[in-house]
Amino acid sequence: MALPKRIVIHELGPREGMQIEKTPIATAEKIRLVDLLSDCVFPEIEVTSFVSPKWVPQMADAEQVAAGFKRRPGTKYTCVYLNTQGMARAVGTQKLDVEGSLSVTASEIFSKKNTNRTIAETFAETEKRIAALQQMNVPVSEVSVMAAFGCNYEGNIAPEHVVRLIDRMMGIAADHALPIKLIQLADSMGWATPHSVRKLVGMVQERWPDARINLHLHDTRGMGLANALAALEMGVDDFDSAVAGLGGCPYAGFKDAPGNIATEDLVHMCNEIGVETGVDLERLLDVAREAENIVGHPLPGKVMRGGHLDSYRRAAREQAAAA
Amino acid sequence: MALPKRIVIHELGPREGMQIEKTPIATAEKIRLVDLLSDCVFPEIEVTSFVSPKWVPQMADAEQVAAGFKRRPGTKYTCVYLNTQGMARAVGTQKLDVEGSLSVTASEIFSKKNTNRTIAETFAETEKRIAALQQMNVPVSEVSVMAAFGCNYEGNIAPEHVVRLIDRMMGIAADHALPIKLIQLADSMGWATPHSVRKLVGMVQERWPDARINLHLHDTRGMGLANALAALEMGVDDFDSAVAGLGGCPYAGFKDAPGNIATEDLVHMCNEIGVETGVDLERLLDVAREAENIVGHPLPGKVMRGGHLDSYRRAAREQAAAA
Repeated sequence: MALPKRIVIHELGPREGMQIEKTPIATAEKIRLVDLLSDCVFPEIEVTSFVSPKWVPQMADAEQVAAGFKRRPGTKYTCVYLNTQGMARAVGTQKLDVEGSLSVTASEIFSKKNTNRTIAETFAETEKRIAALQQMNVPVSEVSVMAAFGCNYEGNIAPEHVVRLIDRMMGIAADHALPIKLIQLADSMGWATPHSVRKLVGMVQERWPDARINLHLHDTRGMGLANALAALEMGVDDFDSAVAGLGGCPYAGFKDAPGNIATEDLVHMCNEIGVETGVDLERLLDVAREAENIVGHPLPGKVMRGGHLDSYRRAAREQAAAA
Repeated sequence: MALPKRIVIHELGPREGMQIEKTPIATAEKIRLVDLLSDCVFPEIEVTSFVSPKWVPQMADAEQVAAGFKRRPGTKYTCVYLNTQGMARAVGTQKLDVEGSLSVTASEIFSKKNTNRTIAETFAETEKRIAALQQMNVPVSEVSVMAAFGCNYEGNIAPEHVVRLIDRMMGIAADHALPIKLIQLADSMGWATPHSVRKLVGMVQERWPDARINLHLHDTRGMGLANALAALEMGVDDFDSAVAGLGGCPYAGFKDAPGNIATEDLVHMCNEIGVETGVDLERLLDVAREAENIVGHPLPGKVMRGGHLDSYRRAAREQAAAA
């Protein structure tokens, strides 16, 4: 398939980036990061996570972060929650674009570790979850599979298994007349390869030709942009990423948690191969450098160090004109 | 074109990795790195660089490094030199596999900065260079183009320009009955994109179908493995890389010099997509971690932190068997 003309990027830095940080980040700094990202014109920014402060102390100020940032018209401000209580907190902000996702984890062991439920329990609870979502008028248009490419505890995940999980979730959605438009494939622990991306994306496209696919990629083993390229060339036009490569899951069993693919590196690659993102790369590179100040340590993004090719092109043209 | 069954990796860490380090590295440590890499079963290791210690003080001990390491049968031990004097020093070690390359830089400004010659001067000197190579019985089978994809000082480099440079060099080689077998395309400043790799590689393959192509890639903007993948899928089977992502050119005009693609990340990707390298990845991951100790700072390689997928698969199997 041809490259998409334009993609949607869901910026996760403020949520996925922060949850892994061991040092507490001041609420004001979290708010500042969201506002800086808003200035980069993202279609979607994930602001925070409504989870138990007992498990993720960094997210104890979710309400304050939500209250503090400034909404930019045209940007959707999303969040994460894991249960009805979290959903109620998110809805209670009356500011976030709270959405429901029917989510399941493809690895049994990771499902237990990350969500404290087996896969069977996840499906059993989905009916209850849908009822709660509908009761709070939270729209549901997404099915999401975590650990869709592999798991540090279980090894490879068969794409057929992932398709079966989606199929079952789509069946439940259909029973409740929920119009699923997006299927998220999350490479939660960085197991995807260009080959496995093509394989799973191809199978999902064939089975659900009308659904949009979102890829959530981590750059755990350096293949992040190679995987994104493989997906782009399959026509995938919806990606998660985090500024500067912030992020990582605290329950993925890594010593050094590797982050999401760096948003600015993804935007830069898209610019270079002719795919629009709508994101202001110059500003975003400044935000990536600022993100390092906010967390207080170097982050893995590359373009913020290596430099934007267009800025070199411009300087070269100016140099040539002056000579 | 299909993926190659097997690729040759030219490990550059001891040379390209060291030349950029500001703190002097002890000669014994440099020797230890070469020996550790030899144990990983590389087909080729670039040991050192015979350049003026005035310009690159880190390489002042090139002779001692060459004298100190232990040759492993089956591995070729190469080196870099920029002029006849350097070549004589390399040959004088009576230990290295000294080879000649007819090299030219596609960017006029970078040619001046990096080699102190214009492109015209490079061609003019090539006859003299060939005479010197032949006089010292140094075999010549390679044509190399530096900055083949772009330049921080000049911007994009047109692939047609690169093909013309190769063509001219091939003509000179033919005049001297030099059997050119390898064409190296060096992305010295990290300008390659998957698209430009496909374009230039395709043009070179079409023009010289019998020549092997080597790609020298830097991961300056995070696209390193995406570029390697694009090349592999064009059938390219010869790559330069540096353990742990060591490296970078001191004259490329970066603040933080970005390294070569990390060898272990390349090997890992190849393993995952079914391309053989012959390199012992387990050992190499240990060497990558050791390389950080040797240079005394973190290096950008990913798999050494994120972990080898096969080791997770093995642990998962053992866990399942024990349950």
